[in-house]
Amino acid sequence: MKDFINQIAPQLVKWRRDFHQYPELGFMEYVTTYKLGKELERLGFQIYIGEDAMEREARLGLPSETDLKEKENEAIKYGVEKEWLDSMHGGMTGVVATWDTGKPGDHTALRFDIDALPIQETNQEYHIPNQEAFTSTEMQVMHACGHDGHMTIGLGVASYISAHHEQLNGRFTLLFQPAEEGGRGARAMTAKGWLDDVDYFYSGHIGINDMPVGTISATVKGFLSSTKFNATFKGVSSHAGMKPEAGKNALLAAAAAATNLYTIPRHSDGVTRVNVGKLLAGSGRNIIPEDAHLEVETRGETKEIGAYMHEEAIRITKAAAMMHQVECKIENVGVTESIFCDESLIPRVQEACRESVFVKEVLPVARVSGSEDASFMINRVQEKGGKATYMLFGTKLNYPHHHPAFDFQEEVLPVAVEALTKVIGRGHGNVY
Amino acid sequence: MKDFINQIAPQLVKWRRDFHQYPELGFMEYVTTYKLGKELERLGFQIYIGEDAMEREARLGLPSETDLKEKENEAIKYGVEKEWLDSMHGGMTGVVATWDTGKPGDHTALRFDIDALPIQETNQEYHIPNQEAFTSTEMQVMHACGHDGHMTIGLGVASYISAHHEQLNGRFTLLFQPAEEGGRGARAMTAKGWLDDVDYFYSGHIGINDMPVGTISATVKGFLSSTKFNATFKGVSSHAGMKPEAGKNALLAAAAAATNLYTIPRHSDGVTRVNVGKLLAGSGRNIIPEDAHLEVETRGETKEIGAYMHEEAIRITKAAAMMHQVECKIENVGVTESIFCDESLIPRVQEACRESVFVKEVLPVARVSGSEDASFMINRVQEKGGKATYMLFGTKLNYPHHHPAFDFQEEVLPVAVEALTKVIGRGHGNVY
Amino acid sequence: MKDFINQIAPQLVKWRRDFHQYPELGFMEYVTTYKLGKELERLGFQIYIGEDAMEREARLGLPSETDLKEKENEAIKYGVEKEWLDSMHGGMTGVVATWDTGKPGDHTALRFDIDALPIQETNQEYHIPNQEAFTSTEMQVMHACGHDGHMTIGLGVASYISAHHEQLNGRFTLLFQPAEEGGRGARAMTAKGWLDDVDYFYSGHIGINDMPVGTISATVKGFLSSTKFNATFKGVSSHAGMKPEAGKNALLAAAAAATNLYTIPRHSDGVTRVNVGKLLAGSGRNIIPEDAHLEVETRGETKEIGAYMHEEAIRITKAAAMMHQVECKIENVGVTESIFCDESLIPRVQEACRESVFVKEVLPVARVSGSEDASFMINRVQEKGGKATYMLFGTKLNYPHHHPAFDFQEEVLPVAVEALTKVIGRGHGNVY
Amino acid sequence: MKDFINQIAPQLVKWRRDFHQYPELGFMEYVTTYKLGKELERLGFQIYIGEDAMEREARLGLPSETDLKEKENEAIKYGVEKEWLDSMHGGMTGVVATWDTGKPGDHTALRFDIDALPIQETNQEYHIPNQEAFTSTEMQVMHACGHDGHMTIGLGVASYISAHHEQLNGRFTLLFQPAEEGGRGARAMTAKGWLDDVDYFYSGHIGINDMPVGTISATVKGFLSSTKFNATFKGVSSHAGMKPEAGKNALLAAAAAATNLYTIPRHSDGVTRVNVGKLLAGSGRNIIPEDAHLEVETRGETKEIGAYMHEEAIRITKAAAMMHQVECKIENVGVTESIFCDESLIPRVQEACRESVFVKEVLPVARVSGSEDASFMINRVQEKGGKATYMLFGTKLNYPHHHPAFDFQEEVLPVAVEALTKVIGRGHGNVY
Repeated sequence: MKDFINQIAPQLVKWRRDFHQYPELGFMEYVTTYKLGKELERLGFQIYIGEDAMEREARLGLPSETDLKEKENEAIKYGVEKEWLDSMHGGMTGVVATWDTGKPGDHTALRFDIDALPIQETNQEYHIPNQEAFTSTEMQVMHACGHDGHMTIGLGVASYISAHHEQLNGRFTLLFQPAEEGGRGARAMTAKGWLDDVDYFYSGHIGINDMPVGTISATVKGFLSSTKFNATFKGVSSHAGMKPEAGKNALLAAAAAATNLYTIPRHSDGVTRVNVGKLLAGSGRNIIPEDAHLEVETRGETKEIGAYMHEEAIRITKAAAMMHQVECKIENVGVTESIFCDESLIPRVQEACRESVFVKEVLPVARVSGSEDASFMINRVQEKGGKATYMLFGTKLNYPHHHPAFDFQEEVLPVAVEALTKVIGRGHGNVY
Repeated sequence: MKDFINQIAPQLVKWRRDFHQYPELGFMEYVTTYKLGKELERLGFQIYIGEDAMEREARLGLPSETDLKEKENEAIKYGVEKEWLDSMHGGMTGVVATWDTGKPGDHTALRFDIDALPIQETNQEYHIPNQEAFTSTEMQVMHACGHDGHMTIGLGVASYISAHHEQLNGRFTLLFQPAEEGGRGARAMTAKGWLDDVDYFYSGHIGINDMPVGTISATVKGFLSSTKFNATFKGVSSHAGMKPEAGKNALLAAAAAATNLYTIPRHSDGVTRVNVGKLLAGSGRNIIPEDAHLEVETRGETKEIGAYMHEEAIRITKAAAMMHQVECKIENVGVTESIFCDESLIPRVQEACRESVFVKEVLPVARVSGSEDASFMINRVQEKGGKATYMLFGTKLNYPHHHPAFDFQEEVLPVAVEALTKVIGRGHGNVY
Repeated sequence: MKDFINQIAPQLVKWRRDFHQYPELGFMEYVTTYKLGKELERLGFQIYIGEDAMEREARLGLPSETDLKEKENEAIKYGVEKEWLDSMHGGMTGVVATWDTGKPGDHTALRFDIDALPIQETNQEYHIPNQEAFTSTEMQVMHACGHDGHMTIGLGVASYISAHHEQLNGRFTLLFQPAEEGGRGARAMTAKGWLDDVDYFYSGHIGINDMPVGTISATVKGFLSSTKFNATFKGVSSHAGMKPEAGKNALLAAAAAATNLYTIPRHSDGVTRVNVGKLLAGSGRNIIPEDAHLEVETRGETKEIGAYMHEEAIRITKAAAMMHQVECKIENVGVTESIFCDESLIPRVQEACRESVFVKEVLPVARVSGSEDASFMINRVQEKGGKATYMLFGTKLNYPHHHPAFDFQEEVLPVAVEALTKVIGRGHGNVY
Repeated sequence: MKDFINQIAPQLVKWRRDFHQYPELGFMEYVTTYKLGKELERLGFQIYIGEDAMEREARLGLPSETDLKEKENEAIKYGVEKEWLDSMHGGMTGVVATWDTGKPGDHTALRFDIDALPIQETNQEYHIPNQEAFTSTEMQVMHACGHDGHMTIGLGVASYISAHHEQLNGRFTLLFQPAEEGGRGARAMTAKGWLDDVDYFYSGHIGINDMPVGTISATVKGFLSSTKFNATFKGVSSHAGMKPEAGKNALLAAAAAATNLYTIPRHSDGVTRVNVGKLLAGSGRNIIPEDAHLEVETRGETKEIGAYMHEEAIRITKAAAMMHQVECKIENVGVTESIFCDESLIPRVQEACRESVFVKEVLPVARVSGSEDASFMINRVQEKGGKATYMLFGTKLNYPHHHPAFDFQEEVLPVAVEALTKVIGRGHGNVY
């Protein structure tokens, strides 16, 4: 194992930097999917893309037709094969790779998210991607949440399975999921049924919770269920000096909604959150604003609290529209569930990693917050009787996730690959 | 005429001071009505009270049953006859007095309002009612808008008609109207049909627009149409620390309504006003407020602008309730219309007062603001083809209307009586 | 012990019903204090009242001078001795009773709160105080939080100490504290130094957390730190139709404050709460509101979070005043701290109650919420090195605390007396 | 005169269409200024540009340095001479042209505004500029307020002066003013002193108030004084799920400001307006918004009411920042004053146009609303003892001003030229 990891380590860095240079936003990971798929095919996996990988209608928060079209044209220039593009057409990105050892044993699934963020990467020299020349080549798009690392780890695990399949038992499903940001993609892969007969499910994240490289966490606590929606208000414009009464003020509706969304009562059963992350309204200074756009997110510690927050938020938003007599269109663009990792996996991870070289310490549980759409997969696995967890892989961060100067220590990559490969073999009668 | 006025002047002061000492709120003028009615009967008028004077259902903003009951009991103690009380039962106060000379001629109507205000009269010594010992004997009730003077003027005019009926022609209708404050009573008298065949209608006010005693105005400009409503929000209370999510917050609904009511756009066709005069919400500091109460008023320069303001206000108020998921009951408690005096009455008034002793100057028109429910009577008269105006009678005021130290110069009383008696004879072939 | 409890049980009911019939609001418990003091003196305790019992300046949220005066006059009629009234003058109610056994041993303190609530007790027949004729005799005042029971338990414990002092060691301090509601009194008794050398401190509540009679809890978790303040806004009134621009709108300031207070961000370190329990603003419908009054409460899971909430709330309130150019006076009227019971007292309570007759079950910890000003005493004891806890005594409730039909099962009284008397002897070398 | 107009009419259309094809935003009219200047020089006027034409520091609402730089580079490509560009560098656009007949007589000034709007011209076929191929060649910039027509009229008047100077007396100053939109340029030309000794001042607008071609108005009533400001709020971003309390929410500050700005009381002395035309806030859905931007405009019927509105607006905006603890920068970007045309110019205009060919009817006064920065010039002229008016020139509009399909009937151009040339000669002893 140690040899395998040492051997693959340089390739991990190569993959990661390649992904980092060509980041793609959610449901537009055409090139990324193509690269991943080709590599997984090369490794001997059976791959599934497009409608074979996920349910079209279960996706949320799709980009506009124009943006999709433009991105598909770019993908052609990049060299993505027509057949692949046809499958992925209209934002059907992501790839699922399966390996059946042919031997009895558990069905293990792993999920790696692949999308980037609408952030302009810093051009400051202290930023290592600048020093080592693997900065994003796309304007306003950046892997600022470590998904370039996640995919790389996925390919590392895939390489391990490919190389050691004779020693492994059971079946493996690797889900390279699009559009994690905003909670938009996992639901669609889950709806396809990939998780329905899974015995063990693993996912995870690098660089959360201030752990050093070498430290991992077997489970997490605290991911909130969340819903994300956009509200578009449509009023009537009018000259603010000459005919104010003829206007229907969308800006005031949005302001009333925003203000009152924060008044949703705290919940005695657990944590709640609400945020209006963006408000854009109006055109000219002397025009009654006709248009307004809100981006809203609510969270709750449990499904029930999450549902409570969402319902309150929707009602308040609609009432704000009624208040100022404007129309209101609400679009649900993302959703995540809460995550309750199986505690029985804690000793399993701890034992698997006992003799590790790269993994130095396994914390039983780490406190997190925020939201994750792996929750859909985890909850589906658990509903069907399987076990699931979400792990953390430590790395020092100089700048937080979603920051223009976000970067991680590449040393976390072999740690994560070692941890996951040890865990997925463990208890399946596999030998290392 | 001069002799008549001089002769009646002391009686005017007596009447005024008597009314001032026993002020009664709108629709509770039991004692006042009784006094007026008795006096008018004595003068030989045919009088109408209760359902004979106004439409029960057309009244707005009635006091509570309890308050009415209590006031009726007090009226008994005061000596109001049972038969009168039975007629007035339930807030059917006010009296209409008619005189038919039996000779052909115009039908002239005059209106005098009789209600007081919920204000505690000052006990400061500089206040003349204190010096001369005719202060209000009722706690928290006061004639602070001069209606004690208006009624007095009405009795003065009635005395004149009674004394000079042989020289007069046509018919006279004197409306002693309850509940002018809040725009609640005129509509109900109008609905009874008193104004339907009126040729000339006169009403007016003392002490507006900074005119000295002796100056009157033949017409006014600027009364706004208005609507008054109460909104009652009913939510659900809950312990604010233990179960905040179980509450439905009526206070927040009221606050959202209040704030957003002021955002109703200005109107390019004319003046608008909106005011939330009162907001009462909540019970205890640690309880999610279950109840809230708003008192709202909107105004507009024209009927159309008034309707616009009212509709906007109602929608905003209901939307605020929806926003915080509370119930909302809206009760219309008052309404006035705009007033456009007949300009043809300007020369009529001017000529009538040309040889006056008490009236020194007649302004053609005075600028006012605020609202008046005589508007209902004026508009009805005009709709039916009659002429109507609203006059002002000057007096210096040391404190404004509705102030605890409001008082007027009693010298205005003979001025107003002279003006009105001269005007109502004028052009009817009457001789002075 | 069993005999003692059985013997005193009828007296407990008598005391409780007597207190129930004469409830008094915080800092106005003149009669209650007098009764308690007299009884404690009779039992042989050294008592302290007025300035001997608490720091005058450390009290919060005092009633108005007028209310205090009126209540003191009533107390005279009731028979409270002049000397006592002089000591208690101006709201210095409550009594501290001490007993020194003269033998070495721990200093144990217990706190019982004595104030009632501004609630009109129901006159429904199902309500046992009505059936058994011990309803409140005071309009709009009621023991609706069980403090009548708490005082009774205190007298029960005092009776036990008096009767068994020869078997007891060490010293005992019983604090009958005024004005617990609103968190106004405990701070003032604490400031007097009563808790500074206490080894063990016990307080508690009946009827929280849905436990049956016979079940008690050794400790609690979840009391929030809280601050309570009133904000008074002073603007300028003006006629809303005639001169709207001359007004400074206090109602709008209060509405802006109320709305925005709820937008204080949730805190990632723990629970927060905010409530505007009352908003009173304005006078008449057509007057720009000159006055507004807000009653606000904030809470936080820890002292730090509590302080964060309070600071945010104050700033928002002041900014709302600035926004509408009105003056704002903020008065802090109550404060409580969080409570962290000493877990080492769990086994102590459990062992003490092991052989009990009335106590059937001792839960180690019960989850509560809300706030308690016993927190000041508990925190002082712990700061000085003592141990402290807050216990619950189970009773079925048909209606919640602060409800007009609140009542408890009187069977909880002997349970609580037994529990506390067993606990305060325990570990002091006392024999039962 | 008729001959002159007929002769110049084709040239008017040519000029207008040329200006229409190359619209430039306020303070970036480099090419437009160059064209105008060259033409005026050719006609024999003395011209003044750059610092000779206006006060640099008195300009408001300047474009960004970047935008200015970019536009200056474009102007070079267009062929504007370096010397001209140096003078105009940094947004010093616009040109003043003077003609002194050398004969005694009045000093007459005329103002023509030259800037365009940030609007994308429609590509619909019904739009005449599309049919006749003179559509704007600039993306997102369009002459949608008729200033292309105004400049053309200015050149028409200049041509007349040039051709008829021998018959004319006194002096003429033609101000081709930049940046009228937003009320940003007139103040700067006024500050230079051009209006300080003017006897008669004329400005005007085409296509307001629904008058047909051939009808003009000698004066207007109703232009409101206005102030325009931008507010920039700077808070602190934070992850909305993980650390909400660390954020300082600029979006909430902006929403509180926007909502409460509309609550500024109506003014009893005259018309008021307030509008928040644009609100942009926030970045990502799950980030506490750090930035917000408001574009605000207030208006008042008089200078005093305008000042009242502005002061209220500034205070409310700052208080909203304080409320949410964010910083607030306010930038005044535009201002206009009210206009009270000299009524003595009504007969002057009427008489001047009595024998006109193109002018069919002269209305004495037209009701307008909105705001105009010619107000600065008019008010300066009047302060110094001159007479000034603002005229309207009728044309049918299929779409309103500031609409992507705005267009006017070119037949209005000779009407306006005839009216102005007749007026400026009139009463100066000139012969036609």
